[in-house]
Amino acid sequence: MTDAASLADRVRAGELRLHELEAHADADTATEARRLLVEEDTGASLDSVGNYGFPAEDAETAIENMVGTIQVPMGVAGPVTIDGGAASGEKYLPLATTEGALLASVNRGCSVINSAGGATARVLKSGMTRAPVFRVADVAEAEALVSWTRDNFEALKDAAEETTNHGELLDVTPYVVGNSVYLRFRYDTKDAMGMNMVTIATGAACDLVEEETTASLVALSGNLCTDKKPAAINAVEGRGRSVTADVRIPREVVEERLHTTPEAIAELNTRKNLIGSAKAASLGFNAHVANVVAAMFLATGQDEAQVVEGANAITTAEVQEGVSESGDSEAHRTESGGDLYVSVSIASLEVGTVGGGTKLPTQAEGLDILGVRGGGDPAGSNADALAEAIAVGSLAGELSLLSALASRHLSSAHADLGR
Amino acid sequence: MTDAASLADRVRAGELRLHELEAHADADTATEARRLLVEEDTGASLDSVGNYGFPAEDAETAIENMVGTIQVPMGVAGPVTIDGGAASGEKYLPLATTEGALLASVNRGCSVINSAGGATARVLKSGMTRAPVFRVADVAEAEALVSWTRDNFEALKDAAEETTNHGELLDVTPYVVGNSVYLRFRYDTKDAMGMNMVTIATGAACDLVEEETTASLVALSGNLCTDKKPAAINAVEGRGRSVTADVRIPREVVEERLHTTPEAIAELNTRKNLIGSAKAASLGFNAHVANVVAAMFLATGQDEAQVVEGANAITTAEVQEGVSESGDSEAHRTESGGDLYVSVSIASLEVGTVGGGTKLPTQAEGLDILGVRGGGDPAGSNADALAEAIAVGSLAGELSLLSALASRHLSSAHADLGR
Amino acid sequence: MTDAASLADRVRAGELRLHELEAHADADTATEARRLLVEEDTGASLDSVGNYGFPAEDAETAIENMVGTIQVPMGVAGPVTIDGGAASGEKYLPLATTEGALLASVNRGCSVINSAGGATARVLKSGMTRAPVFRVADVAEAEALVSWTRDNFEALKDAAEETTNHGELLDVTPYVVGNSVYLRFRYDTKDAMGMNMVTIATGAACDLVEEETTASLVALSGNLCTDKKPAAINAVEGRGRSVTADVRIPREVVEERLHTTPEAIAELNTRKNLIGSAKAASLGFNAHVANVVAAMFLATGQDEAQVVEGANAITTAEVQEGVSESGDSEAHRTESGGDLYVSVSIASLEVGTVGGGTKLPTQAEGLDILGVRGGGDPAGSNADALAEAIAVGSLAGELSLLSALASRHLSSAHADLGR
Amino acid sequence: MTDAASLADRVRAGELRLHELEAHADADTATEARRLLVEEDTGASLDSVGNYGFPAEDAETAIENMVGTIQVPMGVAGPVTIDGGAASGEKYLPLATTEGALLASVNRGCSVINSAGGATARVLKSGMTRAPVFRVADVAEAEALVSWTRDNFEALKDAAEETTNHGELLDVTPYVVGNSVYLRFRYDTKDAMGMNMVTIATGAACDLVEEETTASLVALSGNLCTDKKPAAINAVEGRGRSVTADVRIPREVVEERLHTTPEAIAELNTRKNLIGSAKAASLGFNAHVANVVAAMFLATGQDEAQVVEGANAITTAEVQEGVSESGDSEAHRTESGGDLYVSVSIASLEVGTVGGGTKLPTQAEGLDILGVRGGGDPAGSNADALAEAIAVGSLAGELSLLSALASRHLSSAHADLGR
Repeated sequence: MTDAASLADRVRAGELRLHELEAHADADTATEARRLLVEEDTGASLDSVGNYGFPAEDAETAIENMVGTIQVPMGVAGPVTIDGGAASGEKYLPLATTEGALLASVNRGCSVINSAGGATARVLKSGMTRAPVFRVADVAEAEALVSWTRDNFEALKDAAEETTNHGELLDVTPYVVGNSVYLRFRYDTKDAMGMNMVTIATGAACDLVEEETTASLVALSGNLCTDKKPAAINAVEGRGRSVTADVRIPREVVEERLHTTPEAIAELNTRKNLIGSAKAASLGFNAHVANVVAAMFLATGQDEAQVVEGANAITTAEVQEGVSESGDSEAHRTESGGDLYVSVSIASLEVGTVGGGTKLPTQAEGLDILGVRGGGDPAGSNADALAEAIAVGSLAGELSLLSALASRHLSSAHADLGR
Repeated sequence: MTDAASLADRVRAGELRLHELEAHADADTATEARRLLVEEDTGASLDSVGNYGFPAEDAETAIENMVGTIQVPMGVAGPVTIDGGAASGEKYLPLATTEGALLASVNRGCSVINSAGGATARVLKSGMTRAPVFRVADVAEAEALVSWTRDNFEALKDAAEETTNHGELLDVTPYVVGNSVYLRFRYDTKDAMGMNMVTIATGAACDLVEEETTASLVALSGNLCTDKKPAAINAVEGRGRSVTADVRIPREVVEERLHTTPEAIAELNTRKNLIGSAKAASLGFNAHVANVVAAMFLATGQDEAQVVEGANAITTAEVQEGVSESGDSEAHRTESGGDLYVSVSIASLEVGTVGGGTKLPTQAEGLDILGVRGGGDPAGSNADALAEAIAVGSLAGELSLLSALASRHLSSAHADLGR
Repeated sequence: MTDAASLADRVRAGELRLHELEAHADADTATEARRLLVEEDTGASLDSVGNYGFPAEDAETAIENMVGTIQVPMGVAGPVTIDGGAASGEKYLPLATTEGALLASVNRGCSVINSAGGATARVLKSGMTRAPVFRVADVAEAEALVSWTRDNFEALKDAAEETTNHGELLDVTPYVVGNSVYLRFRYDTKDAMGMNMVTIATGAACDLVEEETTASLVALSGNLCTDKKPAAINAVEGRGRSVTADVRIPREVVEERLHTTPEAIAELNTRKNLIGSAKAASLGFNAHVANVVAAMFLATGQDEAQVVEGANAITTAEVQEGVSESGDSEAHRTESGGDLYVSVSIASLEVGTVGGGTKLPTQAEGLDILGVRGGGDPAGSNADALAEAIAVGSLAGELSLLSALASRHLSSAHADLGR
Repeated sequence: MTDAASLADRVRAGELRLHELEAHADADTATEARRLLVEEDTGASLDSVGNYGFPAEDAETAIENMVGTIQVPMGVAGPVTIDGGAASGEKYLPLATTEGALLASVNRGCSVINSAGGATARVLKSGMTRAPVFRVADVAEAEALVSWTRDNFEALKDAAEETTNHGELLDVTPYVVGNSVYLRFRYDTKDAMGMNMVTIATGAACDLVEEETTASLVALSGNLCTDKKPAAINAVEGRGRSVTADVRIPREVVEERLHTTPEAIAELNTRKNLIGSAKAASLGFNAHVANVVAAMFLATGQDEAQVVEGANAITTAEVQEGVSESGDSEAHRTESGGDLYVSVSIASLEVGTVGGGTKLPTQAEGLDILGVRGGGDPAGSNADALAEAIAVGSLAGELSLLSALASRHLSSAHADLGR
């Protein structure tokens, strides 16, 4: 009888519970024992799940009740040339997905971007938020709490920052609804995505609020953060990184490589991504940015539930006439017609290169492909570079899908490559 | 020199391109060659990524330019007792995640649900959508197209269904904005998530529209579908499965197991999930449903980008007095106080048990844990059961996090278990 | 001592209450007495308010505790040529407003529309809604209620229509959130705005639901109606009339009359009305449709609070090349450049020409200016025509403001004409 | 032949145009001539419209092409006791409406509020916004503009404030979408609603931006302001005044005066205003705040189109046990049960007591009823007081309608009093 089998026996006998096995065996044995039990109870075979490629103890801060791993195919797109604030040069983009044709589509977009000399990308705003909710007696007390918060920013900052080596409290914005007061704390979390850091830091600040005012903390998160929910507050004000990438593609490249015209893509973008999303009452004015965000998140150990916020993206496309250094779209109309300008702006991309899933073996390698594993120099630059790379990947994906739609290739592309 | 090394050489020599390798070698060799090239170009080591547990050709419809796999730790929560329309009995819930403490949290919720006799779940609406956008001359032509569509539903249905063995066109809803007309096609796609099926079927229907009317197709997807973007149309009308799970937990269980009271959880839910989300202008009135959706999606081969729509969820919590078979919340006030009723309603959960990522080895095993791999009997019942299981897992996650917040455990739970 | 003075005395003496005066005097005397009391208590003079132009009893179904009237300046724009489904020919548009420059702006737009041969307008969807909310025991009962509703549409229709001579129940759509079930009843209310009619009819239907099922009515309006709140359900699915107006303006007219170009207006519309509104997470993708809706609502006795829903409007603007009967925007590029196409689509315009404020003397005259007072022939056609007129007025307002902005006239126009 | 008749003749003869009459006659004669012409063209009689109660020239900055006035019945509710930051004491609330039963409903709410000792109200945030949109070459230039804006706030402030005696620029927030940059200017406009003031001031600041940077102004309003459209940016961040009113009503008062219970109202508010609005994807979580906003706006000369933003309101209702000075809802549960706490928070209430429609005779009297006509001392306090009065009126309206619904009186109330 293997160690795992005997451990499983003790669970069956009621001596141990499923989540207690790591206290009685090494992580791999505990994991194996759990597989035995689940297989027995469900009739499932878990051979593939159990056939993972690193010691189970490497995952001990990432999961409980482990039975193995899910393996998601990873590929690379590119390399694509990025002119970023933090990322720079030619980069392979790692994507892990199960959606056939996605990687090929992004790859095609990267190739077109390269033909245009590469994409530009910038992180334009940055900050991770946590917004506890307090209960007060009435609106008069709410007003007092708002005033107190404005007058005591430094004390809140001291309390919050005492809990962290890296985080810096940037600002605190109060919102009042009746006798509920929400304080949205925003932090610079450097290369960490920072959700956990800001939760702990905000907890310390909340202690101060409760000590010094009449307010009672109801919940450390009052949903104005907003984490892992579609919310306009993120789409408007940003969360994590607000990042934009853009490219101007010569008309000839559009025609020869994408088999369509700048005019057709601009019109399609307006009717689909702008007007269509408007009519759908959407916060996402894009074609499929979430596809690239999800795939690059998976490949680099990000939090998959935060794909939700990563979908708050706006894609624009326009025809730009002439040389247009002035940005004047009416100047220098040429006979041949103008070039194609395309941009993707992701409002709330929550990424990190330290902590969480980034420490796992395969995910760390995904970061290595981009050259952004661990803390950056200066601090925050690796996470910025990751955000820029995802924005450029999204831009490539948008370009490719928009032009495929413009050429009516969508269903046939899937039929050829897909599921 | 290995086969992979020589293949890599040919790429370096410009003879082959990165995405063409499968035409010149078996899938594993092509994958290895790509790793060699990427390692060389980036300095990354891809040993872990390359250490995957199944033949690369198994992933050929899921990815292009494969270099290996990302391995995400998977664990199980439960078993939890489900009284569903399709799912029934005790089920282990498979979750793949890198967020420490998540699985433990869901597990605690499952245990509490079991103490209450299990959770009820139902799929209340179902249908996968695709909404092409057409251009017409003006609003008079738009009116004509709307009329034509209403008068020719059967012809559209015939055209669409000719492309599929399983899909059934349920209805077509027109939306007009100026000279853009969006037709939202909704299908029963049985056990398939169905995005690809409905894209192809709708393409055929669009051909008919173009033949019979003056309208020109601009894009096969006009964003009123709405796929992979946060959009009110999905939150209101649903997409994929609209599924609800609920449970009534005896007061004693709340007090003893969750260390809080029904009143505290109800108040917290109101201030955080309802009022807080209202003030954030959110489409997600819940605590962290996306966490469970993302983790169960990963574990069962769903499309991670559709976590976006899965976050369109509303959590409710209320104190229910007395025996209350009538649902009357004011009846039979007892001395000890009432029980806790909690529900989670996910408007747009897009799931399938056939096709796409469900065919991959580890993901198929995830489905086996739930007993829902492949087509159900009757058709659609496996996907319904998966949706119900995810709803119950989400309910467990909500219960656990709300009670942790009510007990102010959030940051310490993360500090103990987490990153 | 006048009758009014003695009536006021009795209030001061505590014999009567302010809202009981109509039982003791004619309406004008009661109104005067109230003015005396309010003047005394507040120090305000109410001479102008009291100088109203019709017998107070004419307003008895419109207000309680009347003290006089507010007088809002009314003017006319146009006439403008309308090619509508119900409205047809040259129409003066009545607008009542206190915003200087608004009427001049709409008037300029009408003039430009006329130069283009008039605007086209159509009502594309129609129906007034009321959505009661019921409480059920749990999700299993919710499912049962949804099924019952689908199976008993005819019985609900009979119950609802028994209360009304004109209204017809079109459909009932169920929405479930936990143990709350919302049934959205949608009616054809002909020429009535219909809010009151559908409330009464739905009340009767709710009685049937309560008799035949286990559900308990919580509120006759559960906010999925949605009345007088900004809500995506209205912006997406419509409420009242969904109406679109559009016009194609020759390039020369744009250049000579609006002092700008089709290209400049199209670009401005995209950056402001589409992308700007997208970034603001708005349901209104227009410049100032609410201005025209509010002013025409006031002038025709509509419910001013429903201006809220009237703002759910999307304005589009594009350059159309060549003759373009095919709608193909790329065809026939001419040397001089293309024309300007502009449209306004209002999703939820709640209007009526009978009942409510339409009966008041000045408001009835406002309807007469448009030729739509009272019931239409066929029933509903007057309200349709009113909706089309408002859409065309909105189109004129958009055209004018967009071109003013394009010419940077906005602030100077206000400075010249305005406040 | 009257002067008006001969003026009309000149229009018929093509000598004059309809909007030019004021240059050739006094305002009343011009107005009369226009009536004659419109009556002739439309067959309408405009006697009531023409029977207005003040010299037409008083309206010359409020309208063009005047033909008369629309008269809207005005009544008073209250007096109601307000404990505000600016408003204080007993106030009659003026409401102008054509919706029967509305004033009676608000009046009943005021009476109940008085029985509870009055309502508390506070303006918690204040500022009028204007957000121009600029075009830049690409995202690198966008980043430069954002930096420039942050570095040059004082220069922008100087430029803006040079145009106004009263306005103060508070902050400028940049938002970037591709090559469009939106700068949201926020001002303290004191007692003016301020839309016109901030438009002019922002125009001056835009000149500076264009002089000093590469950016080109596309439109002085880029829709991130957001004026007269439903937009989350206003619901979240506020515009004009963000104001809250609340009241705690003793249980006995609820039972005796409102014929329901605190529990029933709290439940109804949750299912209707919170969950119902959530499911409708609404920005308005209230019952009918827009009714009171629209009616008080009309009565006090506000901009009716801004009722749109005034509907961005959240109503909360909860049962509060015991004396509860601590705000602890679980303390001191008494045998009889708890009291009712209700609040209304309006995020974006745009009001002024100087300028615009406030100068008109009847509207000025409406302001006098509240004692807030003209500039306040300190500056801004009159507009604050108006905002607080509207919030308290809204609170009264919510209380009354929620309790009517709880007692199932809604349709019968309308049947008795209404249309």
